[in-house]
Amino acid sequence: MTQSFGLDVIRRGADEVIVEDDLTRKLAKGKPLRVKAGFDPTAPDLHLGHTVVLNMMRQFQDLGHHVMFLIGDFTGMIGDPSGRNVTRPPLTPEQISQNAETYKAQVFKVLDPAKTEVMFNSTWCSQLGADGVVKLAGKYTVARMLERDDFAKRFAERRPISIHEFLYPLMQGYDSVAMKADVELGGTDQKFNLLVGRELQKDFGQEPQVILTMPLLEGLDGVNKMSKSLGNYVGIDDAPDEMFGKLMSVSDELMWRYIELLSFESLATLSGWKRTVEEGGNPRDIKVRLAQEIVARFHGQAAAVRALEEFEARFRHGGIPGDLVEQVIEVPAEGSAIASVLKASGVCPSTSDALRMIEQGGVRVNGEKIGDKALRLAPGATYVLQVGKRKFARVTLRKAG
Amino acid sequence: MTQSFGLDVIRRGADEVIVEDDLTRKLAKGKPLRVKAGFDPTAPDLHLGHTVVLNMMRQFQDLGHHVMFLIGDFTGMIGDPSGRNVTRPPLTPEQISQNAETYKAQVFKVLDPAKTEVMFNSTWCSQLGADGVVKLAGKYTVARMLERDDFAKRFAERRPISIHEFLYPLMQGYDSVAMKADVELGGTDQKFNLLVGRELQKDFGQEPQVILTMPLLEGLDGVNKMSKSLGNYVGIDDAPDEMFGKLMSVSDELMWRYIELLSFESLATLSGWKRTVEEGGNPRDIKVRLAQEIVARFHGQAAAVRALEEFEARFRHGGIPGDLVEQVIEVPAEGSAIASVLKASGVCPSTSDALRMIEQGGVRVNGEKIGDKALRLAPGATYVLQVGKRKFARVTLRKAG
Repeated sequence: MTQSFGLDVIRRGADEVIVEDDLTRKLAKGKPLRVKAGFDPTAPDLHLGHTVVLNMMRQFQDLGHHVMFLIGDFTGMIGDPSGRNVTRPPLTPEQISQNAETYKAQVFKVLDPAKTEVMFNSTWCSQLGADGVVKLAGKYTVARMLERDDFAKRFAERRPISIHEFLYPLMQGYDSVAMKADVELGGTDQKFNLLVGRELQKDFGQEPQVILTMPLLEGLDGVNKMSKSLGNYVGIDDAPDEMFGKLMSVSDELMWRYIELLSFESLATLSGWKRTVEEGGNPRDIKVRLAQEIVARFHGQAAAVRALEEFEARFRHGGIPGDLVEQVIEVPAEGSAIASVLKASGVCPSTSDALRMIEQGGVRVNGEKIGDKALRLAPGATYVLQVGKRKFARVTLRKAG
Repeated sequence: MTQSFGLDVIRRGADEVIVEDDLTRKLAKGKPLRVKAGFDPTAPDLHLGHTVVLNMMRQFQDLGHHVMFLIGDFTGMIGDPSGRNVTRPPLTPEQISQNAETYKAQVFKVLDPAKTEVMFNSTWCSQLGADGVVKLAGKYTVARMLERDDFAKRFAERRPISIHEFLYPLMQGYDSVAMKADVELGGTDQKFNLLVGRELQKDFGQEPQVILTMPLLEGLDGVNKMSKSLGNYVGIDDAPDEMFGKLMSVSDELMWRYIELLSFESLATLSGWKRTVEEGGNPRDIKVRLAQEIVARFHGQAAAVRALEEFEARFRHGGIPGDLVEQVIEVPAEGSAIASVLKASGVCPSTSDALRMIEQGGVRVNGEKIGDKALRLAPGATYVLQVGKRKFARVTLRKAG
């Protein structure tokens, strides 16, 4: 482990390092750094978007540092006290511990369990007491809190901000104090909160943590942040075939973004791939390599090979044209009936024709034969539609409005 | 005890009753109401300004209601966590209990100890825990909190507001929930906080408290709110002579305000006094009656009679002209040397003359002979100066700037 090696790895992955000099100084001490990343216990299903941060945590582990996987159960047990966000009911301690197990099963596909400390912030937040929260609140002013982008925007638009929302960045910052974090990782959208941690540490007489903001991975639609609720995600727990197929469905442009944020291949290898495509190579071949790498990471090499074979058996051997133009079709949030999509994409002249083709077993979606005429396709994903042997379409469904 | 009698008394004393219909409904139940008033444990010296609220509490007691004297020790023990207000260091539990004793000794000069419940909000605030505070904070929005006059002003002027300041009105409101208050009393400057109590009670499924805002008593200077730190106060613990003298020093206009807020005489009596003065009676005679009533209230009838005798011996028999015009003189915050004041008021031609007169024992302030040439007179009070037998001045010292 050398300092410069560490810095290189970090620079490649992070969007911003605040402050790089602090990081150099901390690394120079030659002691393992305490590296923190926090996760929300309300949604324990991890997807590739989360792995951008997890991969960096793994890098730190491989460099010999101490990685702390923090589950923010304190706020999870509170839920949304304003009652505005009905999707955030308070969780019971049982639900939290169940979700924590689900989390662990997933994150240990990336992190080394032996080198990972799983922590729960209720441990110290509950001890803080009512007076501790008031004291913490005294460390920050209303005006400074309103500088956070989303608060500023909502305040300007006169949309409500509950006062407890002002407390959460402070409590997240206090986590860093309690954990004595040297480094905190988070998405670029977490920058403000991560900075609060730096400041509170100074207030509590600690050396401020270095913050690494990590890029946010776009979902399969290439538009929104990857998210389970938008349905545009590749789950860590997705089966090999599903994972492979979803990754093969991303557009040729988005593919490069995924490679940049997800691949562990060397920078030299990635440059080679770019060159190949620039010189006329088929992007599809590169996409296969990415899909294989990711499937192998979560399901092993053998599964990756099988997934490719399956995929090729279905598609290439079935003769999917390599140059399908992607169509974007707007559909309602609840998705659209398969027959409508078949018609809209032009592979069937009418919905009644589409329904008949389904009955006859002549319709495939992403290579799988469709038997259910009531099937709905959800927005936020790309589908390869096939009718009979020759008619193909590649459509991305986007939520209307 | 009749409803209408209760309402009359309350209407006479209160600036606002919110909501009067609620109060009528509560009184109609015929059960004793739970009446709350909160006091700050950091400044346990009570003055006549505080008694405006205390007197109303006493009225409620006399009407058979249950009066709760709340000591806000929870926030007192926290102090000012932002560190900006150095005059608010955290108090220890020992200091709090000492201050509470001081408080009790004073308030029981107005309230009936047997009918008063002394409470400390740390009892329930500490039990609230960190999560309780967060939940409470979720009940209110930033925008609504910024509607409070002083917050709105400071925010507009870009002066800092610490986030913990947003929590205090909520915790004060929660006090009402914990105490199941039917009525809360406070100064007009407390209106916003008292209203928060109403709202939180609704949130917690309670019938909202009625709030009575009480007028703020001006200090002896007739300008600022009465306050110990401004030095313009009459303390509940002031000696009879001092109390009497201070009350006699208020201007003829301010006297009516004091009568309105402090006297227990009937409205008919007060009208009589007004008429007397309008018809040419000397306001000084009315002032004597007010001063006697107040001294009697805190020190007994005998002390009031003695104080008057003392006062008359010093002043009237010394021949103070009844028509002294009040002069206002600006002095530094730390006060001004007696000789300078004597010169500025015109009773001495020069400071050296003034010093000589003091040496000769020819100078009196408020009737008392002055021997100390280094004496400083503080701003925020009115003094009757006398040099020799004939020269008099009545000056109010005001802080310059």
